[in-house]
Parts: sequence; C-alpha cells; structure tokens
Amino acid sequence: TIIAVLEDEAKRRKKLQGKKVMITAGPTREQIDPVRYFSNPSTGKMGFALARQAADMGAEVTLIAGPVSLETPPKVDRVDVVSAEDMYESAMKYYKEQDVIIKTAAVADYRPALTYNHKMKKKDEALGVEMERTVDILKELGSHKTGQFLVGFAAETQQIREYGREKMKNKNLDAIVINDVSEEGSGFGTDTNRVIWMSSLEEEVLPLLDKQELSREILHRISKELADV
Amino acid sequence: TIIAVLEDEAKRRKKLQGKKVMITAGPTREQIDPVRYFSNPSTGKMGFALARQAADMGAEVTLIAGPVSLETPPKVDRVDVVSAEDMYESAMKYYKEQDVIIKTAAVADYRPALTYNHKMKKKDEALGVEMERTVDILKELGSHKTGQFLVGFAAETQQIREYGREKMKNKNLDAIVINDVSEEGSGFGTDTNRVIWMSSLEEEVLPLLDKQELSREILHRISKELADV
Repeated sequence: TIIAVLEDEAKRRKKLQGKKVMITAGPTREQIDPVRYFSNPSTGKMGFALARQAADMGAEVTLIAGPVSLETPPKVDRVDVVSAEDMYESAMKYYKEQDVIIKTAAVADYRPALTYNHKMKKKDEALGVEMERTVDILKELGSHKTGQFLVGFAAETQQIREYGREKMKNKNLDAIVINDVSEEGSGFGTDTNRVIWMSSLEEEVLPLLDKQELSREILHRISKELADV
Repeated sequence: TIIAVLEDEAKRRKKLQGKKVMITAGPTREQIDPVRYFSNPSTGKMGFALARQAADMGAEVTLIAGPVSLETPPKVDRVDVVSAEDMYESAMKYYKEQDVIIKTAAVADYRPALTYNHKMKKKDEALGVEMERTVDILKELGSHKTGQFLVGFAAETQQIREYGREKMKNKNLDAIVINDVSEEGSGFGTDTNRVIWMSSLEEEVLPLLDKQELSREILHRISKELADV
C-alpha cells in the first residue's frame, strides 16, 4: 500500500536519527606568506553532499570545511578552517562525541617549514622552500577513537583494492571508500564518482553515481553497520 | 530635459564602443604534481567586475581568467588558464589587437622548478621544493606594447604612492590602480576597494567603492585618457 511505502521512505530517511556525524571536507591551505600558499584542487563537493544527506537522514552533522566556495547544507553545523593544523585541532575538539566520522578532506600532507607574516619580496634568483609533514589527521583519529565508526576516502590509480585494504588497517578505519581516479567521471571536481565500498564486513563495487546518490549509498551502508554492531 | 539625460546616459554607457579590452583576472596555479600546487587567494572579482562593466560600455572584451569560481559576464569572451605560463601565452596571443589591457590577475611569481606527472608518494622526512621565477607578464606587455593603453594593479601596504609610481615606470604602464591593502575593506576577496588612480596625467584618491562602481570609475578614466590622446 501507499502508506507502507511512505512509512518505509520515512524510516529510510531517518536512519541516522539521534546519531552524531562529523565530516571533514575540502582542501587545506598551507601559507608561505599572506599571499602565497600550497593547496590542492579539492572542491569539497563529496563532503558537502555527505553532510546534506546525513542531516536529511536525521543525523546531527558537524562539517569541518577547508576553504571552498560551497553553501552550507540545511541543518548542518559548519566549522571553517584553513590549514591542516586548524583542521586537526577542530577534528580533535569534536571527535569524542561522534558516532560516525567521515574524512573526505584532502588535507595537505606537507606545509612550508616557515611561514612569513609579511609578503616576501620577489628576488630574481631561484628560491628553495623547505617543507615539513603535517599531522596525519585520519591516523590520529584512528588511534584515539573510542567506538566511533571511522570512514576514510582514498584516491588511487593502481592496485586500488590492496592499497585501500592496507590504508584501512594502518589507520584503524572501519570502512574506506576507494575512488578509482584513473576512471573517467571520478576524482577532483567531478560531479560523479565510481567507488569501491570496503569494510570489515563487505567489499562492494558501486556503479557510477552522482555525489548525492553516492552519499545516500555510503550513509545507508554506515547505518546498516552501526545497527549490526 | 529627460531626453537629454537619457542621451547622456546612453553616451556614457557606450564610451568604449568599438574598443578592444583585454583583462587578466584571478590567481594562477603552479603545479608540483597533479594534486599539489602553489597559488594565492585572488578570487578574480575585480577583473570580472571590470570585464562586465567594459562590455556594458560597448567594448569587445577578452577576459583571461585563472581558476576562479565566477560566472562569465554577458558578452565577454573568456579564456581559461591555469598556470602563469598559460596566462603569459594567452596574453601574448591576444595583446596586439587590443586598445586597452588591464592586468588584475595575481600571477604567481614563483613556480616549482620541477613538475611531476604522477602524485608524489609521501615520505616521512622533510621535502625541499626548488622554486624558480615565472615570466613577469605585465613587464613583457609593457616592453612589447605598440600603442595599447596598459593598466596595472598594485597591492601595497606602505609608501604606496612611491612604489606605485616606480612600478608604473619599471613596467612601462600608462596607468596604475593602487590598492592600499592595509586599509579595511580593501584587498583579496573583499567586495570593496579603496584605491588611488595614477596615470601620467593625474593622480586621484578614490573613495571606498564596491568593485562594480570602482570598475565604472576606472573605465571612465581610461576612456577619457584614450579620447585625450
């Protein structure tokens, strides 16, 4: 009957009712001086799509966003950050109370060892920039977690299953979404993704989906694994 | 009379009728590898506002844009570029036929000496990145120009008149718009600017204006100087 269908739909929609979900999204910027930085081409679309969908499914969503030009989805708490260090601090501030943590952010893995407060004056000669590693936020979350369901994203071009499985183990993740960026329609700035969902329970190749549909599929699988625990 | 007022307005609006105007806008990105780059926080707003206004005043506009998230204004020909080198090539391709060239782009002045086609694998240790100077597009345009009215932008925090005048001379500009970025409401990402207009004929401190109003003021002064020649 139609009533049953509507009830099903309503149940599906509220599958994350009462759950707290933290999502990191976008790139980070690592400043050399006030007008120069290192970054990467992440647009934040995947993380924002997940935040919108999670809120729609009833979750309380905290979205930690690097510098992106996207609007905050309805009913989502957004925390804006710039650098990997900022994002790390925000993530560590909010992770404890979460049920689910999804890391989609493309966090810079290197930053300039020195940051200048004033614009460097140009010189004619070459310039050596010493870079140092940033904190591995996902790994930190993996080693500190106290029951949170932790999901990572990986973009790989080869041996994607092996690298994905390895990353999941190294970083103590509960699931990983592996993006085959060598495939057309996947990767930075696209509206679609073709991914493999991998958890301790299952491994599943999903079809090419737009980021909103993919968010629904991912969150559906997360809510199922939460219920199974 | 009202008819006279309307005629005046129409005349003002078409002051750049038949003129070709090239504008560079936005930042450039200098890739280290496919997922890492150097850049700066330019949003392209000033250049896009100028392009919109110039087209509105009847000019044929070529807008050479770095990676920005802005829509192309009506009746503007847009050329998208990524790196300083791309922007240089496009600028040199189109400059000859122009009457006016306005450089608002925040072109990276350094780029990695080496670019990798594959994502660099992370290592635990520090990383030295060798940077080299990019071409000074504005200076190249200044030394090659054959009658084009060449306008530069400068962002300064101190001795702004002296630095502005010096830049105008060094780069063979016809005018320069000097942004006092130490003032509130001026600079990267803002919707307003407080500037000094400086040409061989005049020097004028303009009030705090939004970027669309400022574009009108700048283009009005350019069209006046073109007419005076």
